[in-house]
Amino acid sequence: MPRSKDAPADRSIPSSAASGSDFLQLRAADAPAGGLSDWLAQRLRLAVSDGRLAVGDRLPATRTLAEELRVSRGVVTEAYQRLIEDGHAVGRGRGGTVVVAAPVPAAAPAPERPAERPSPQAVFTAEPGADVFDAVRAAPARIDLSPGTPDLASFPRTAWLRAERRVLGTLAAPGFGYGDPRGTPQLRLAVAKWLARNRGITVSPDEVLIVSGTAQTLALLAQVLHGRGVRELAVEDPGALGARQTLQYWGMRTPPVPVDADGIRVRELRASGAPAVLVTPAHQFPTGVVLGGGRRRELMRWAAEEGGLVIEDDYDAEHRYDRPPVPALRSMLPEHVCHAGSVSKLLAPTLRTGWIVAPPELHGALVDAKRFTDLGNAALPQLVVADLMETGELERRLRHLRKRHRARRDAMIRAIATHLPGAAVQGAAAGLHLTITFDADFPDTALAAAALARGVKVQPLSWHRLDPGRPGLVLGYAASTATEIAEGVAVIGSVLG
Amino acid sequence: MPRSKDAPADRSIPSSAASGSDFLQLRAADAPAGGLSDWLAQRLRLAVSDGRLAVGDRLPATRTLAEELRVSRGVVTEAYQRLIEDGHAVGRGRGGTVVVAAPVPAAAPAPERPAERPSPQAVFTAEPGADVFDAVRAAPARIDLSPGTPDLASFPRTAWLRAERRVLGTLAAPGFGYGDPRGTPQLRLAVAKWLARNRGITVSPDEVLIVSGTAQTLALLAQVLHGRGVRELAVEDPGALGARQTLQYWGMRTPPVPVDADGIRVRELRASGAPAVLVTPAHQFPTGVVLGGGRRRELMRWAAEEGGLVIEDDYDAEHRYDRPPVPALRSMLPEHVCHAGSVSKLLAPTLRTGWIVAPPELHGALVDAKRFTDLGNAALPQLVVADLMETGELERRLRHLRKRHRARRDAMIRAIATHLPGAAVQGAAAGLHLTITFDADFPDTALAAAALARGVKVQPLSWHRLDPGRPGLVLGYAASTATEIAEGVAVIGSVLG
Repeated sequence: MPRSKDAPADRSIPSSAASGSDFLQLRAADAPAGGLSDWLAQRLRLAVSDGRLAVGDRLPATRTLAEELRVSRGVVTEAYQRLIEDGHAVGRGRGGTVVVAAPVPAAAPAPERPAERPSPQAVFTAEPGADVFDAVRAAPARIDLSPGTPDLASFPRTAWLRAERRVLGTLAAPGFGYGDPRGTPQLRLAVAKWLARNRGITVSPDEVLIVSGTAQTLALLAQVLHGRGVRELAVEDPGALGARQTLQYWGMRTPPVPVDADGIRVRELRASGAPAVLVTPAHQFPTGVVLGGGRRRELMRWAAEEGGLVIEDDYDAEHRYDRPPVPALRSMLPEHVCHAGSVSKLLAPTLRTGWIVAPPELHGALVDAKRFTDLGNAALPQLVVADLMETGELERRLRHLRKRHRARRDAMIRAIATHLPGAAVQGAAAGLHLTITFDADFPDTALAAAALARGVKVQPLSWHRLDPGRPGLVLGYAASTATEIAEGVAVIGSVLG
Repeated sequence: MPRSKDAPADRSIPSSAASGSDFLQLRAADAPAGGLSDWLAQRLRLAVSDGRLAVGDRLPATRTLAEELRVSRGVVTEAYQRLIEDGHAVGRGRGGTVVVAAPVPAAAPAPERPAERPSPQAVFTAEPGADVFDAVRAAPARIDLSPGTPDLASFPRTAWLRAERRVLGTLAAPGFGYGDPRGTPQLRLAVAKWLARNRGITVSPDEVLIVSGTAQTLALLAQVLHGRGVRELAVEDPGALGARQTLQYWGMRTPPVPVDADGIRVRELRASGAPAVLVTPAHQFPTGVVLGGGRRRELMRWAAEEGGLVIEDDYDAEHRYDRPPVPALRSMLPEHVCHAGSVSKLLAPTLRTGWIVAPPELHGALVDAKRFTDLGNAALPQLVVADLMETGELERRLRHLRKRHRARRDAMIRAIATHLPGAAVQGAAAGLHLTITFDADFPDTALAAAALARGVKVQPLSWHRLDPGRPGLVLGYAASTATEIAEGVAVIGSVLG
C-alpha cells in the first residue's frame, strides 16, 4: 500500500468537506509508513465504535475519500474491504459501502478490586473467603511474618540463571513444543533421586507426576476422588485453611480430626468414617507437631484395614533442625499413601513446581486430570529445577537455608520470651514457622488486625481451626531478618500489653 | 555424631557375629562423614524393608552393635531412636528394641507405558483416546508435519535469557513468594497492550487473567459453566479433537455445528439450542477458513439475542500472510465473548502461557477457578514474556515468523502440487498448517499410519470431524524446513500412489 508520491507533509482534512472525511478527524501524516489501509480501517472502526459513524451510514465514496486524504483509491478500497470482512460494513454495489454493525466500546477500566486495598480490619473481621490470602498478601505491611515462605531474599538467582543458560544451550527444538503431561523425563528422574536421598522413598521416574505445586495436587486428587464417588476427605484440626478451601472448592466435605502432641488422632479418624485424609506428618501445619512413631503405625493400619487413602503433604519436611527428617509415610505403604512435595519451601513458591507420587491405582487418572487441566507444566522451569537437583545446587541451598532459618527461629523464640512472656511456643523443631498460643480468651483475629494496623502481618491461629481452641498466632520466621522478627514480635507484644 | 577416634579404616563385619550385625552387611567406612546415625538408621530400614529384619525381631543390643561397628554407643542409640520415631520399631525397656512394622518395598519400576512406544498402526487404528496426542508425540518419525507448533528451532533463546537476567536482576524478594492468581501485573498490562495493538481489543489489565495456555482456558471455562448448570458447549465440525476432549473431560456435551467456506454456520448453531459455542474465527481449525463478515454479525446477533456465550480461541490469529488479521470478535461484543489467546504459536507451546479476557460477569468465577487449580502461573516466565512484549522483541519475532512460515507454506503448496496433484488445499492464507482433502473414499487414518510407517508424521482430518466427510490430512508446515516439507509430502504421495 504505497502512499501517493506527491502527498504533502500535512494531510489534515479541512473541516468543510461534509460529504467526505472530516468526521474522521484524519491526519494521514499520523499513519505508519507502509500500512495506510490498515491505519484507515482502524480509524474507521474507531469512528463506528464511538458513534461518529452510525449503523446505516454510508461511507464516503472511495474516490472522494482518496482525494481528500491524498492517497491512492486502492488504499481506501482495501480499508473498506477490511470493514466488510470483519463484519462492520457491507458493500451494496451502487449503494456504496454501508455501516451495518458497531463494536461495543469497552467499559471504562474497572476500579481496583476492593480486595486489593483492604483495611486491616476488612482482612480479619469477616469469615475468611476464597480470596482471603490474596487480600492478606495485598495488605501493606512493614514486616511480614506470614507463614509458608522460605528465605526469599536468598533465592539463588545466579545459579538459576546459569542453569537456565545450560538448559537453553542444549534443549533441542522439539523440546519447545507440547510435552509429556507427566512432566519432563529429566525432572521426574531428578525428583525420584531427590526423594530417595532425602525422603526415604524408592520410586521410579514413571511414577512421578510433575504438577504446579501442592495446591494443584489437592485439586487434581479431589477431582479424581470426586469422580469415584468420594465426597469426604478428612483434614487435621487445626489444619491449613488454604488446603481446606481448595478441597471444598472441588466438592469435598472436610470433616476435622483433632491433632494432639503426637499428631493426628487416628482413632477419631477411624470414627469419622472418611475414606481419605490429608495429613502433614513431617511437621504438622500449623502446630508443628511431628507425627509420632505409634501414630504412624496406627495410620498405616487404618489405611490398610479400611482401604483408606492417606494424602501426605510433605510441605517442609526437609527443614528439620535437630536431626534428619523422618522418612516419608509413602515409604511405608505405597498402595495407600499419595505423597505430595514441591520446591515452594526449598526454592520459592512462585516457581509453582511440585510432584505427586500416587498409589499406582490413582496414577493414570491423575495424569489424565493433569493433561486436561493444563497439558502439563512448562518445560523450561522444570529443566532448570532438574539441573539444580542433579548438580547438588539444591542440596547446597537447603543446607544454607537450614542454617539461616534456624538462626531466625532462634531470634523469634528469644523475641517471644522477651515480648510475649505469656505465650506458649509450639512446633519449633522444624519448618518455616512456629505457633504461639495464649492462655486467655480473646479473638486472635482482633490481635492480627491490630498488629497489621501497626504494620506487622501475622495469621490468626483460629483461621486454621475448625473446633474452637485457645487464641494464637502462626508466625513465619524464614523470610524475615532477625531485626525484623524482633521488631515484629515487639509490636505484637505492645498490641497485647 | 562423631566417629570414635580409634576406628580403623575397614569396618566390615565378620560374618560369624550371629547375635550382632552381620545380617546388616555393614561397612561403616561407607558412611558419610558426620552422619553415622543417619546412615545406620537407613541401613536398618533397608534391612527391615527387604526382610533381613522381620517384624518381631529384636535389634542387636546397642552395646554389641556399637562394638562391632566400632562406633560410639550413642550413634546406635540415636539410630534406634529414629526407627522408633518413624514407626518401624518400639523400645521395650529390658526387652530391647523390637521391629514392629515394615515398609512396603517399592514395586520394580514399571515397564515403559505402551503409549510410549506405539507402533504406527496403534496410534491411528483405534478410536483416539485421552492420551492420543501423547502417543503421537512419542511415536518416532523422521519428519514431523503435525499441526500446531510454530518454528521451534528459531525460539529466541538469547533474547529469552537476556530478559530473564533483567527480570532476576530487578525482582524484589516478595516477588518469589505466592502471587496474584490472576497473573503478575506486568504481564496483564503487557497483554492488554498487545491485544490493543494486535487484536483490536480495548481492555484493562484488571480484566486479563493469565492462564497456562488455551487448554487451561477451556478447562476453567467448562468448570465455571458446569457450576452454573451448563452441560452443552457447541463446537465447530470439523474442529480440534483436543479441544473437544478437554471439554468432554470437564463434563460438557459438544454438539457439532458445521463449518463451510464462510466459517461456522450460525443458523445450525441457533437450531442446536446450545447456550455456548467454541469458535476459531481468525483461522478455523482445521479448515483454515476465516469467519466471514456476515457470519460475524450473525454470530454476534445470536449471542445478543439468545444470551449465548462465544468462546473465541484466537490461537494463531497473528499469523496472517496476505493482510493484517481481522480484529478479534471480542472487540464487537465484550459482554458475550470470552477471548482466549496464548504465546504457544508466537513463542513456544512449552511456555504454557496464555490469557483469558472474559465477559465481566464470568471474570470473578474464572479467577476463583484458577486460584483453586494452581494458585496462578509461575511468576518468572510471566515476567520474561512481559519483558519480551514490552521491548518489542515479540513483535520482531512475529515478523520473523510470518516471513519464515510463509516461505514454508509456499514450499508445502509447491510440494503438494507436485506430489499430490489430486488433493485440494484449504486454509493456506494464514496460520501454521493447511488442510488437504481427497476426492476419494478411503480412511485417512490408514494414510496417516502408512506415512508414519515411512517416517512422516501427519494428522488425519477425520480425527477432527464429527460428521463424516472427505478423507484428508492436516499438515503443519511451520516447524519443518522446506527440504523436510518437500520430502514429507513426497512420501505421502508415494504412499497414496
